[in-house]
Amino acid sequence: MSKEENSVLVGILMGSESDLDRMRGVWEVLGEFDIGYEVKILSAHRTPDLTTQYAVEAEKRGLRVLVAGAGLAAHLAGVVAAHTVLPVIGVPLASSSLGGLDSLLSTVQMPPGVPVATVAVNGSRSAGILAVQILAVQDVRLRDRLKEYRQKMVEKVMAVNENLNLEPS
Amino acid sequence: MSKEENSVLVGILMGSESDLDRMRGVWEVLGEFDIGYEVKILSAHRTPDLTTQYAVEAEKRGLRVLVAGAGLAAHLAGVVAAHTVLPVIGVPLASSSLGGLDSLLSTVQMPPGVPVATVAVNGSRSAGILAVQILAVQDVRLRDRLKEYRQKMVEKVMAVNENLNLEPS
Amino acid sequence: MSKEENSVLVGILMGSESDLDRMRGVWEVLGEFDIGYEVKILSAHRTPDLTTQYAVEAEKRGLRVLVAGAGLAAHLAGVVAAHTVLPVIGVPLASSSLGGLDSLLSTVQMPPGVPVATVAVNGSRSAGILAVQILAVQDVRLRDRLKEYRQKMVEKVMAVNENLNLEPS
Amino acid sequence: MSKEENSVLVGILMGSESDLDRMRGVWEVLGEFDIGYEVKILSAHRTPDLTTQYAVEAEKRGLRVLVAGAGLAAHLAGVVAAHTVLPVIGVPLASSSLGGLDSLLSTVQMPPGVPVATVAVNGSRSAGILAVQILAVQDVRLRDRLKEYRQKMVEKVMAVNENLNLEPS
Amino acid sequence: MSKEENSVLVGILMGSESDLDRMRGVWEVLGEFDIGYEVKILSAHRTPDLTTQYAVEAEKRGLRVLVAGAGLAAHLAGVVAAHTVLPVIGVPLASSSLGGLDSLLSTVQMPPGVPVATVAVNGSRSAGILAVQILAVQDVRLRDRLKEYRQKMVEKVMAVNENLNLEPS
Amino acid sequence: MSKEENSVLVGILMGSESDLDRMRGVWEVLGEFDIGYEVKILSAHRTPDLTTQYAVEAEKRGLRVLVAGAGLAAHLAGVVAAHTVLPVIGVPLASSSLGGLDSLLSTVQMPPGVPVATVAVNGSRSAGILAVQILAVQDVRLRDRLKEYRQKMVEKVMAVNENLNLEPS
Amino acid sequence: MSKEENSVLVGILMGSESDLDRMRGVWEVLGEFDIGYEVKILSAHRTPDLTTQYAVEAEKRGLRVLVAGAGLAAHLAGVVAAHTVLPVIGVPLASSSLGGLDSLLSTVQMPPGVPVATVAVNGSRSAGILAVQILAVQDVRLRDRLKEYRQKMVEKVMAVNENLNLEPS
Amino acid sequence: MSKEENSVLVGILMGSESDLDRMRGVWEVLGEFDIGYEVKILSAHRTPDLTTQYAVEAEKRGLRVLVAGAGLAAHLAGVVAAHTVLPVIGVPLASSSLGGLDSLLSTVQMPPGVPVATVAVNGSRSAGILAVQILAVQDVRLRDRLKEYRQKMVEKVMAVNENLNLEPS
Repeated sequence: MSKEENSVLVGILMGSESDLDRMRGVWEVLGEFDIGYEVKILSAHRTPDLTTQYAVEAEKRGLRVLVAGAGLAAHLAGVVAAHTVLPVIGVPLASSSLGGLDSLLSTVQMPPGVPVATVAVNGSRSAGILAVQILAVQDVRLRDRLKEYRQKMVEKVMAVNENLNLEPS
Repeated sequence: MSKEENSVLVGILMGSESDLDRMRGVWEVLGEFDIGYEVKILSAHRTPDLTTQYAVEAEKRGLRVLVAGAGLAAHLAGVVAAHTVLPVIGVPLASSSLGGLDSLLSTVQMPPGVPVATVAVNGSRSAGILAVQILAVQDVRLRDRLKEYRQKMVEKVMAVNENLNLEPS
Repeated sequence: MSKEENSVLVGILMGSESDLDRMRGVWEVLGEFDIGYEVKILSAHRTPDLTTQYAVEAEKRGLRVLVAGAGLAAHLAGVVAAHTVLPVIGVPLASSSLGGLDSLLSTVQMPPGVPVATVAVNGSRSAGILAVQILAVQDVRLRDRLKEYRQKMVEKVMAVNENLNLEPS
Repeated sequence: MSKEENSVLVGILMGSESDLDRMRGVWEVLGEFDIGYEVKILSAHRTPDLTTQYAVEAEKRGLRVLVAGAGLAAHLAGVVAAHTVLPVIGVPLASSSLGGLDSLLSTVQMPPGVPVATVAVNGSRSAGILAVQILAVQDVRLRDRLKEYRQKMVEKVMAVNENLNLEPS
Repeated sequence: MSKEENSVLVGILMGSESDLDRMRGVWEVLGEFDIGYEVKILSAHRTPDLTTQYAVEAEKRGLRVLVAGAGLAAHLAGVVAAHTVLPVIGVPLASSSLGGLDSLLSTVQMPPGVPVATVAVNGSRSAGILAVQILAVQDVRLRDRLKEYRQKMVEKVMAVNENLNLEPS
Repeated sequence: MSKEENSVLVGILMGSESDLDRMRGVWEVLGEFDIGYEVKILSAHRTPDLTTQYAVEAEKRGLRVLVAGAGLAAHLAGVVAAHTVLPVIGVPLASSSLGGLDSLLSTVQMPPGVPVATVAVNGSRSAGILAVQILAVQDVRLRDRLKEYRQKMVEKVMAVNENLNLEPS
Repeated sequence: MSKEENSVLVGILMGSESDLDRMRGVWEVLGEFDIGYEVKILSAHRTPDLTTQYAVEAEKRGLRVLVAGAGLAAHLAGVVAAHTVLPVIGVPLASSSLGGLDSLLSTVQMPPGVPVATVAVNGSRSAGILAVQILAVQDVRLRDRLKEYRQKMVEKVMAVNENLNLEPS
Repeated sequence: MSKEENSVLVGILMGSESDLDRMRGVWEVLGEFDIGYEVKILSAHRTPDLTTQYAVEAEKRGLRVLVAGAGLAAHLAGVVAAHTVLPVIGVPLASSSLGGLDSLLSTVQMPPGVPVATVAVNGSRSAGILAVQILAVQDVRLRDRLKEYRQKMVEKVMAVNENLNLEPS
């Protein structure tokens, strides 16, 4: 599934269809910044060959950043990172009784030399912003849009402070 | 590196040469039971293609059980399990400041359908025994040897009790 | 309670009747592979003698793999493993406020020489697959069925990708 | 190994000879209170039958309290508790890379109805005092000695305060 | 609040009225064994003087065992233990977002010489049984009733096995 | 033990003489700010009456802030806080195999209404600064000295940057 | 938003409008003690300049204590503390799947010299009391009101004990 | 301190001079790839203004990626990320008794919209590689060098396998 009006720069992967809701923030953010993306369900353990193939071909297909979300023993981001030199952003998903500690450690504790750029547990919006920041490294216009986005966050907080209601809801 | 006097039934993998000492218990136990084995350094992240190839070919090469030890985000056992239907035993190694909690969760919390038979953190001897138990499922003689091994553990404990010294060492 | 149409090869134990729903995946998988099984409620702490007796007699009764699920200080798999040389698969169940960390550590951290092949917290389907993998070590036909099972997982994921819906549900 | 000058009231068990130093506090305290004890190496997993037999016979042999120390998946106290109605004190020992969290949870998280009276990780002296407190429930003289022991702790602290040296050592 | 038909042997304390439901198992068990008890709300932090006074007077008032349940930084059992030589049973209650890890560590990790006999998180029934076991140390009749209780647990499990229903509920 | 040249405003307590080195930072900081202090060994569990008495009398004796450091089930700060309305600063000490998680949770997770102002594990210097900050709430001169202290920290960091050596030491 | 009838002495900050309910206890307590306060939504990460400005100006504006509540990687209290010498009270909020362990460690584990006075996870009422205690260091009348508050807690507990209902609710 | 032969593209920050050894991997890797960098000691808490200033000016000064390492309540990466739209890589350092769990959670659990690209605890080499990968997004030549680097890792592992020594060292 891809958003074709722009060239696809970001590949968004997740281990299971049931992760769609927790990963939605990634493509919401990319959409706000008009960055082309595609979304795939690919499991490091159930479809290892498809996953490897995707990772190996990603660079040639023109992708520039990959985002991978998974729960439990979350190997997806690490397996993808092992097969590409593109930056891989990992989103640990809290899908077990352990509250995401398992997926966080499985995603972030990569061995020396094969990093996964890990964001917060269930942090799909942050993963989207990080992808934009990486693409913006060589793109002044995109950096400007990130600054506008930040500015809007500030204005939103300032507006909230104008109308604070301290009574119990 | 293999012990060739018997056919090689067990493949022992570990993520790094620095894990050799923590994994030694596997081949010590297999040697005591005269089971053929081979030992490989293979990393899920640094040498993913070699690892995949090893896992894919293991069954045809006559291997019957695989043992994989790794630390940190220990994906090795899981990646191997994704590429074979042979039983895969995972040994989480305590190689980071987190005491092995990272490798334990990364090894054991596999998604439904792709199990890793996980033993204790640094539990290489137990991994060796589990490999023997699996091979013994269809081998009465090997089960008898496992019973002897258990019996020796009992006798050892009984002998210790004969000579207990309660003074500070 | 047993599924008698085949000889019973797998004994499935759990500490309490309240664990039935979390353990159901084991016999669902075994049923899919036409492997005979029996299910027992046996507690390491409330019925230790029945548990010991079951473990001691399992091999002679023709069982080849045991699966034990328990929560809290989950000793069931370990106690069973202490009384048999058959491979014992442990399923830590998340039945306390600690999210299964207690049952995971109690199941997996066995001392050297007495392993429990531990799967994920609440990982009953994985326990079922692991039992099949162990039985398949000497059974090419069963290994082929495992490969078909894997292939179906791949096809299912591919079909999901055909119909991905990225809109909020 | 027993201290025979008094009838043996307390059985002290531990899973391995290597636990002797961490368990020493139990018999040191019992010695200070002139309570008869015996010390045994018994493993829930390596010598399950000896352990069961010991637990089953303990009450008839005149024992009144049992103390069990173990590390890792510390089942010893729980297994003993399953076979006796005597109070069982558990001492979790920190013998793995997880700092004793594994043995603590394995010892304390017993299911409803089969308690283990758990003390601190490596808390052998506290286990000794708890054994004395339990024996003192019906023994005024022993309670008085416990009060003297407490009083000595107070005096020791007061003496320390007289001579506090705040300079770096 | 006390159950007066027998002399009161067990004092049951908890830090807050909101703990009543989680502590109910203690007096349910004591009632089944016809042991006299009293129940008090006493907080180590909000009513320290009342708590100290209760602990100091408990022995003279004829109490023989104290049970204290608390959540969060669960100091209640420890504070009580500091003021009496009676055995004190601690019940860590899971009343915060940390799942009871806070109350477990606060209850069990007492310093050398001042033990709290800690049971499982929310383990009120086990606390009741442990209190009975301690009182039974010098009471053969009570030990016999504990054995009957155990026997009933066995029979209950056996009956469950007669009627196992493996279909989804 | 007190530093008498000024009136004693801060009471520094710790559970054991063995904590002196980990608590030294408190009086080092107070000395730098010329604030009078006294140091006492007082245990919530071994000397509960002395501890209570100290806490009860502290305000009348002219003390204005209390600092309490303890390890394990670190109740000292909480017990002190229960007996005074002076602010109590808690320093969790890492004195067990659990790395201070036990003392941190035991110190910080106080029930509503009886706070302990908790600083980092082993954070004795921070406890000293916090005590100064509290005393400085009504003391402009002391606030100015805190600002100078901060300024020196800045200058120290700037000087370090002048002389950075990136070669291995 | 401020409560203007008194001079504003306490600034209450939180990272997000969604934290209002978990922070309400702070101003409820301050209101009970007739202490002036103001409430602001300020994020260390989304509005860093506003946060810095607030912290830098707080002292001059007459504030005497700051309270900051945040979840996740809870930097708010620490960032505020870095920019003022006023005492800063941190309230870790449990807003992620990790139960507040992330916000607790992010709040309390400050480096030497820049303390945050941390209270319990979600401990907003305790934060309010701590703020009062700090203001009361130089205010006998306020200390007397704190004692009355404590006394009411005692009376409330005593009343509860009069009417304990041990039946299931 | 900067490596001036190339334009400086990467800013490497750490909270304390004592972190130099744990952060060395970052500039070692950047040196191997001939990428210009500078190293600064900047603390989020001790030198907040310098840190803010550095972050605010980084983009204009031509920096393209920032790397920040810190221990304890590791706010450095987050504070820097709050003041720039450049990608910020966080390296949690294990500098406390909690083994780096505190710094990991403080670094990774950033709120939605302000990501820190977190690598493993003490993962300075991985941070260096991630910085190169980000710079390589628009630089084919750099991607080729990353592939060569990967290839060398593979060759190194293959050479190790040629010379495996299974004897105890």
